[in-house]
Amino acid sequence: MSAIEVPVRVRWADIDAYGHVNNAAMFTLLEEVRISIFWRSVGFDNSSGAFGLDGTSATFIARQEIEYLKPVGLPHEELPIKVWVSRIGNASIELDYAVPAADGSVAVKARTVIVIVDLTTEKPRRLTEREREDLTALMDEPTEFRRR
Amino acid sequence: MSAIEVPVRVRWADIDAYGHVNNAAMFTLLEEVRISIFWRSVGFDNSSGAFGLDGTSATFIARQEIEYLKPVGLPHEELPIKVWVSRIGNASIELDYAVPAADGSVAVKARTVIVIVDLTTEKPRRLTEREREDLTALMDEPTEFRRR
Amino acid sequence: MSAIEVPVRVRWADIDAYGHVNNAAMFTLLEEVRISIFWRSVGFDNSSGAFGLDGTSATFIARQEIEYLKPVGLPHEELPIKVWVSRIGNASIELDYAVPAADGSVAVKARTVIVIVDLTTEKPRRLTEREREDLTALMDEPTEFRRR
Amino acid sequence: MSAIEVPVRVRWADIDAYGHVNNAAMFTLLEEVRISIFWRSVGFDNSSGAFGLDGTSATFIARQEIEYLKPVGLPHEELPIKVWVSRIGNASIELDYAVPAADGSVAVKARTVIVIVDLTTEKPRRLTEREREDLTALMDEPTEFRRR
Repeated sequence: MSAIEVPVRVRWADIDAYGHVNNAAMFTLLEEVRISIFWRSVGFDNSSGAFGLDGTSATFIARQEIEYLKPVGLPHEELPIKVWVSRIGNASIELDYAVPAADGSVAVKARTVIVIVDLTTEKPRRLTEREREDLTALMDEPTEFRRR
Repeated sequence: MSAIEVPVRVRWADIDAYGHVNNAAMFTLLEEVRISIFWRSVGFDNSSGAFGLDGTSATFIARQEIEYLKPVGLPHEELPIKVWVSRIGNASIELDYAVPAADGSVAVKARTVIVIVDLTTEKPRRLTEREREDLTALMDEPTEFRRR
Repeated sequence: MSAIEVPVRVRWADIDAYGHVNNAAMFTLLEEVRISIFWRSVGFDNSSGAFGLDGTSATFIARQEIEYLKPVGLPHEELPIKVWVSRIGNASIELDYAVPAADGSVAVKARTVIVIVDLTTEKPRRLTEREREDLTALMDEPTEFRRR
Repeated sequence: MSAIEVPVRVRWADIDAYGHVNNAAMFTLLEEVRISIFWRSVGFDNSSGAFGLDGTSATFIARQEIEYLKPVGLPHEELPIKVWVSRIGNASIELDYAVPAADGSVAVKARTVIVIVDLTTEKPRRLTEREREDLTALMDEPTEFRRR
């Protein structure tokens, strides 16, 4: 009933000329968090094919927002990115993320709005009860963005 | 006194397994828009060293938001990304972008909040009058985001 | 009957923590050279659908080699990468590249071996006479690699 | 006294429009292998600061070659890339790699030639005895390339 931590490997190639994870590369790290939980079932049981992974549905990223509070460097260890579901809509969900700085404080806050699309009609479809139940296990408070 | 169009080359490597520009790669395209106008002076005269490019200041991306309305594929031509200044703050500016779909409609709406940092104090510094004047030439209406 | 120069835009995101084009990003620049000449017909008339772009064939990269003589930074202008056909085989061609340094000397030498594959049989197929003629227009001396 | 396997995470963003690891992204995976063994000491004890990581030296990639035998997709697990030292020169070493296909056979063979550079003189410097000893632990037979 709360956020989980998904370890993501920062690559040397993610680091820009300032020695920090590039602003766009950060979205690739968040993408890897999604791949881990929904495709690799890291910290989330998606074996039922919930969340549109049964082949009849797809997910579409409708919106993203991010706040960079501190730069993130190249850690020796995998970066434990916190992720949780902050909202479950009719045909969409919102995933929030917190990326840690080296000192453990929050370096980056982010949110992805995902729409579930029916691959036959190519239109958004309602989440099933099963999907809602599964996603509820990851539910937590929405991020407060500072500069919204 | 308005938005300009900056041509950006989409690369084959930006295209994901669905045949569309990857969600994170889109931020690299927006980064190239910023590099073009502020470093290469495409459509914007930054020869005075305005916008913190005289070596004493730096720009820090504080926040980004994006809405993906339609997928973007691999065009034969450069993608003409519209960019404008939507807000000038004391020590920050907001850049808005509109990325066109193949039919000319808006495929992606985005915004970057940039803070100007004094490299000596490592703290935000006020924009100079000269910088405000230069940036005003790119000023236009703020984007209306649908799902904010 | 010789090499052509294809302008390629180096991106900020190609630059690594040392301030140089990352070793892997260099291969993305070479990929853009191939996309330019074979898909965008930059400096090469592929309107006949030669080189397997008529939808019945595909190209497969079988081999690449590269020598980095000098680092490449982020130029204001597009990088004029020289490219030519160094060998035409039965079912394969070799493309050689020379990437210029800021002083105009050669910073990077590279070669890509491309095999033409029949999409029906999924096996290599012979180049047609028309393809050979077209490719001959780009033919030049093979690169001499120093450390091979 | 032989090759080791270094697990590397393939990312969704490494996959191209054909559903395979992009040719340039493969070099990023190999870069991660080097980062793992020389910077993160995965499978290799670099605690003595051997291999130029004591701050007075740097490594420069002089040459790379690669043969793509089979495409590599997006595996659920980390990709166990085999890596070994195939040659120790006076001021350079050669690292060979074998990237596995889904069936365990070799999908990609590659080699990187690395030169050790003295950061004071900015010229190649000889490997120390300690470095030679450490690197010898990773020594194995050089790759046979098919199309060289």
